[in-house]
Amino acid sequence: IDDYIEMNGNLMDFLDEPFPDVSTYEDFHTIDWLREKSRDTDRHRKITTKSKESYWELIKSLLDAWSGWVVMLLIGMLTGTLAGVIDLAVDWMTDLKEGVCLSAFYYSHEQCCWTSNETTFDDRDKCPQWQKWAELMTGHSEGAGAYVLNYFLYVLWALLFSFLAVSLVRVFAPYACGSGIPEIKTILSGFIIRGYLGKWTLLIKTVTLVLAVSSGLSLGKEGPLVHVACCCGNLFCSLFSKYSKNEGKRREVLSAAAAAGVSVAFGAPIGGVLFSLEEVSYYFPLKTLWRSFFAALVAAFTLRAINPFGNSRLVLFYVEYHTPWYMAELVPFILLGVFGGLWGTLFIRGNIAWCRRRKTTLLGKYPVLEVIVITGITAVLAFPNPYTRRSTSELISELFNDCGALESSQLCDYVNNPNMSRPVDDIPDRPAGPGVYSALWQLALALIFKIVITIFTFGMKIPSGLFIPSMAVGAIAGRIVGIAVEQMAYHHHDWIIFKNWCRPGADCVTPGLYAMVGAAACLGGVTRMTVSLVVIMFELTGGLEYIVPLMAAAVTSKWVADAFGKEGIYESHIQLNGYPYLDVRDEFTHRTLATDVMRPRRSEPPLAVLTQDSTTVEDVETLIKDTDYNGFPVVVSRESERLIGFVQRRELTVAIKTARQKQDGVVSSSVVYFTEDNPQVAEACDPQPLKLRRILNLSPFTVTDHTPMETVVDIFRKLGLRQCLVTRSG
Amino acid sequence: IDDYIEMNGNLMDFLDEPFPDVSTYEDFHTIDWLREKSRDTDRHRKITTKSKESYWELIKSLLDAWSGWVVMLLIGMLTGTLAGVIDLAVDWMTDLKEGVCLSAFYYSHEQCCWTSNETTFDDRDKCPQWQKWAELMTGHSEGAGAYVLNYFLYVLWALLFSFLAVSLVRVFAPYACGSGIPEIKTILSGFIIRGYLGKWTLLIKTVTLVLAVSSGLSLGKEGPLVHVACCCGNLFCSLFSKYSKNEGKRREVLSAAAAAGVSVAFGAPIGGVLFSLEEVSYYFPLKTLWRSFFAALVAAFTLRAINPFGNSRLVLFYVEYHTPWYMAELVPFILLGVFGGLWGTLFIRGNIAWCRRRKTTLLGKYPVLEVIVITGITAVLAFPNPYTRRSTSELISELFNDCGALESSQLCDYVNNPNMSRPVDDIPDRPAGPGVYSALWQLALALIFKIVITIFTFGMKIPSGLFIPSMAVGAIAGRIVGIAVEQMAYHHHDWIIFKNWCRPGADCVTPGLYAMVGAAACLGGVTRMTVSLVVIMFELTGGLEYIVPLMAAAVTSKWVADAFGKEGIYESHIQLNGYPYLDVRDEFTHRTLATDVMRPRRSEPPLAVLTQDSTTVEDVETLIKDTDYNGFPVVVSRESERLIGFVQRRELTVAIKTARQKQDGVVSSSVVYFTEDNPQVAEACDPQPLKLRRILNLSPFTVTDHTPMETVVDIFRKLGLRQCLVTRSG
Repeated sequence: IDDYIEMNGNLMDFLDEPFPDVSTYEDFHTIDWLREKSRDTDRHRKITTKSKESYWELIKSLLDAWSGWVVMLLIGMLTGTLAGVIDLAVDWMTDLKEGVCLSAFYYSHEQCCWTSNETTFDDRDKCPQWQKWAELMTGHSEGAGAYVLNYFLYVLWALLFSFLAVSLVRVFAPYACGSGIPEIKTILSGFIIRGYLGKWTLLIKTVTLVLAVSSGLSLGKEGPLVHVACCCGNLFCSLFSKYSKNEGKRREVLSAAAAAGVSVAFGAPIGGVLFSLEEVSYYFPLKTLWRSFFAALVAAFTLRAINPFGNSRLVLFYVEYHTPWYMAELVPFILLGVFGGLWGTLFIRGNIAWCRRRKTTLLGKYPVLEVIVITGITAVLAFPNPYTRRSTSELISELFNDCGALESSQLCDYVNNPNMSRPVDDIPDRPAGPGVYSALWQLALALIFKIVITIFTFGMKIPSGLFIPSMAVGAIAGRIVGIAVEQMAYHHHDWIIFKNWCRPGADCVTPGLYAMVGAAACLGGVTRMTVSLVVIMFELTGGLEYIVPLMAAAVTSKWVADAFGKEGIYESHIQLNGYPYLDVRDEFTHRTLATDVMRPRRSEPPLAVLTQDSTTVEDVETLIKDTDYNGFPVVVSRESERLIGFVQRRELTVAIKTARQKQDGVVSSSVVYFTEDNPQVAEACDPQPLKLRRILNLSPFTVTDHTPMETVVDIFRKLGLRQCLVTRSG
Repeated sequence: IDDYIEMNGNLMDFLDEPFPDVSTYEDFHTIDWLREKSRDTDRHRKITTKSKESYWELIKSLLDAWSGWVVMLLIGMLTGTLAGVIDLAVDWMTDLKEGVCLSAFYYSHEQCCWTSNETTFDDRDKCPQWQKWAELMTGHSEGAGAYVLNYFLYVLWALLFSFLAVSLVRVFAPYACGSGIPEIKTILSGFIIRGYLGKWTLLIKTVTLVLAVSSGLSLGKEGPLVHVACCCGNLFCSLFSKYSKNEGKRREVLSAAAAAGVSVAFGAPIGGVLFSLEEVSYYFPLKTLWRSFFAALVAAFTLRAINPFGNSRLVLFYVEYHTPWYMAELVPFILLGVFGGLWGTLFIRGNIAWCRRRKTTLLGKYPVLEVIVITGITAVLAFPNPYTRRSTSELISELFNDCGALESSQLCDYVNNPNMSRPVDDIPDRPAGPGVYSALWQLALALIFKIVITIFTFGMKIPSGLFIPSMAVGAIAGRIVGIAVEQMAYHHHDWIIFKNWCRPGADCVTPGLYAMVGAAACLGGVTRMTVSLVVIMFELTGGLEYIVPLMAAAVTSKWVADAFGKEGIYESHIQLNGYPYLDVRDEFTHRTLATDVMRPRRSEPPLAVLTQDSTTVEDVETLIKDTDYNGFPVVVSRESERLIGFVQRRELTVAIKTARQKQDGVVSSSVVYFTEDNPQVAEACDPQPLKLRRILNLSPFTVTDHTPMETVVDIFRKLGLRQCLVTRSG
């Protein structure tokens, strides 16, 4: 009896706590946002009360309040550092496929020639310290033999890198593959995938990302960087109990980490925050906005301190244009938008079809082989074309660039008018030279190659982002259109459309701007980003001037792509993988009431419920065994069925197990009580009752059966519920 | 009987519509967001169904889908145009206080001297066409007499402008006074204030804003521009039934309009969108984000096309700095942040105390006199000091500016080293000349003057924004600190703190940057903006470089100000005026359950409810007369009190009134039925029953009595409910 009273006393204590601390959710389950929030408020209240007791507690409460900022600082610093390291390593390893630096093997081509002191600007790419493999091994740098040898070694290195990448992923961290953004969206919406953001994933993803990008496959580092940043966020969450013990708070940190990831990926802190807000996050309170901004900035400045590109910019493809654009140019810009939308549709359909095939056929059984084959094809086809041989970001950078007077690339091989002086920034339109025409052919081939190979690459079992390949496709198309318009304007000054804005000898068309607009359009078509896309591009060009072309292309591309299918690539992959994700943007268009979707239907067995004072332990156990619901409503009695509360399956299981082990007299025939009053034990021979009110949620969320379904969906979305009970007259 | 059946048939039709179209809310009431959303979904569904019927309907549905963009375009264009017109008019009228242009009276000082062809750069301010009043009237431009005459006319013009402004506001549109942002926040949160955003308010606010700013009072046009933009938004809403008939959709448009307003006020489209998101809006779906961005951009480009400042910039105080900042400078920046926080606290406390006094004492009875007196004091004190005589935006512009080689202002009167060549942008630190020292004294006086007068100015019965005065206070303080640091660094190169970053002959300190940081800090202290503040300032400087100083100051200022009181100036004014605003950011810290706050309490009379089939018309009418609740729950019967639904007071009144007029046999003793089945009319002599199921909301929002209050508050916030019923076991 003593024991019983003691236990009872304990129970009474528990009653003061509306939500007992049975916190952990099971893997692949969804969290209850309202409950997490409620728990955090409780915790906060406790700390505030305690802080008035002593100075030590006050300091502890201040530390607690500051921990959010500390976490952001740490995330920003680690993300920035990792991004810098990845950039440097990719740079080095990409060049390693072609040759090696004699003065120090760990220098990339550019760094190698930097340190060379005899280099003038024109010879920058041809310094003696940098030797191609053939030159190093045979001493000949020219000729068919050297070319074949270089070709062979290029392919070999690519195969080696990709093999290493896919093996590491398979052996150590299967979650490290793909871009990670679909999964992060799902996690942020409240789903639990254990280990997806773990330390191991972080390490392996960083290493394999470098390998995968260096192997020359048609993939980018931008998407995976978001995953890496989120892993950092999760890592630092575990340092503070405020975040590690509350799944809701943890997701706030992860949203901010995603912003930091995009910030370093594109060198666009504001764009990163908006990306996190628009594309990735589910629950984004204002406090998080401010902290995300902080994390994004810290990351950007850390990366700049590392200065991986040697230009004190955050990205390789930062540009500044000097010529304004003209109204008539909106026509090609909008055409580029249409192209972007079509590319988006083609890519999503093709990629999803291929991924489905991979899931269902034998193909999925040999991921390593698949990666090797695709790498082989990519490398073999990429080497002969100078525009696909180099890394994709360098390609984009060259395509974005305006042809200055000092530019020596093939794309800038215009016929110069010898009479003119050559100011640096204001070069009039000129006729294209032979270099430009051959570059156009190579670009067209590169475009087809990129379009096809990217569809097969994204989704393989290695880290792979699609921002960069998409942008490359758009940039190539844009540059081709840009040069076409430029030449048309040069040769046909007298056409009506050109007459007004393009006098002879003026600099009217900037092909680099077309490349940028095309890149934005293609990226928009694939991801369906809008505001964040334009802001990221705005941060790359740094001028309000070019926002209108970018917006026109982004809007057109979104509309065209939406006409063929509402979902972006990430939503499609979420659907393909069957994650439970409730999209905020989906409109619920059916006109049904809650009563139409509620279970059980008339023909099915009755609702699985518990009664407040007449179910026995055995009944409960049978119920748990027979059904797989996550929880059960508790009603007054079978007859009246008035709702009292809701009890979680997990907590019920734990409570009964504990009671059977620790509490005397609880046997299968014990009655389970959910009432507030102490049950009357009628006769001595009756088994001890089991009081479980402490695990009963007395404020379950209810709607009436006449509530329209769209309201119910809205409630689920906005409050982040796990379940909602449908009642009629209570 | 026929009549009855017909009526009944009608009723059955109504049953299909879950929400009948009794839409209008009463003035000063709150809207029901969930219901508005539900109505919009219904409307959308109807259009989609119809669009399949004929081509005409399809076109109509497309037009409907496009109307959102059209509204945004129109808002952007009108807002941009109005902002441009206001800028031009203010410019002209501010100069009118000092003199007039002889070549054309409608030219401002600057425009007047532009058209003068003999002007060199140095004489820009002294062209012969521009004559001060004294010169024009007496022919003497120098001497004490001329000074006194100019002084007198300056004050006279100021009094005239402000008298006109306050009279127009009082006579035509009382809602046009103040900054409008507190009211717009309240309206966006779902409150209804009829006429606040009307055409009349738009017109009068635009005119009086020009007058008020020109009168030289310590107020700005930025806040009221947001109000003007929202009026434009409301105006264009009425063109489309989609927006005019749905209060929820209307608020989406208004949020976007607010973004457009800030966009033209500061020339910062992205900052405007974030301002709308962070500070003003309540319900901000992602679709609105994209449209706001569009509206903000259109507004910015319209304003730029008008080019009111002649510098193809959107604002007067756009700057570009050329010198980086150093780590050690963070100390003065943070000190400026502290100053900003203190100023925010002082201003909010002082202003609220003064406004309360105005409300409660005789002062409030004579608003015209108050405005005249304050204008008089301002003008008399402002004229002698050159820094307060000019318009505040010009002052800020000068304070922000870096001293280039060609700068001729007093603030740039440094002692030049004659040995040095003078490149335009890279001037080393120099000792301050006598001009700088006298400027410092004048600035210090201006600072004190601005601090005091702004507290009394904000809240008078004329349009008045506080962005510009706050920024001016911060900019003055910042510039003073900046010059002090600069001179210290120049004279004490050998101090440890300066040794590392400031060699002699280097340009280490930019006093203009200090002014900008100070402005951001003060603005942050008053409004408690964070992200949007930093982004707006970022768009003004156009470089990531200076974000860190701005962030440091903004964060410090917010923390310091928060330590003295959680509320920004807008929230304080909302509280002062007693608007029902549920702040998203307030944490609900009490630990109460719904049962603790629900009415009636035990000692009070029982809950006012209707029963589903036993209340008579007379009972209902008594209930409506005796209580002032907005609605009544409907229960099964007095005894069982199980909830059936909820009925709105307004709809109940209308329904009973209509029934009494139109339906035969409905008398005071008729029974009101809320049930689904047809009531059995027992005897022929019984009065006809009144069926009101169609106005019964069958899905009222309920929570159980054990729900924690913070959850209830959360539900109200996130779902925008109007009411929520508390039940126990149904």
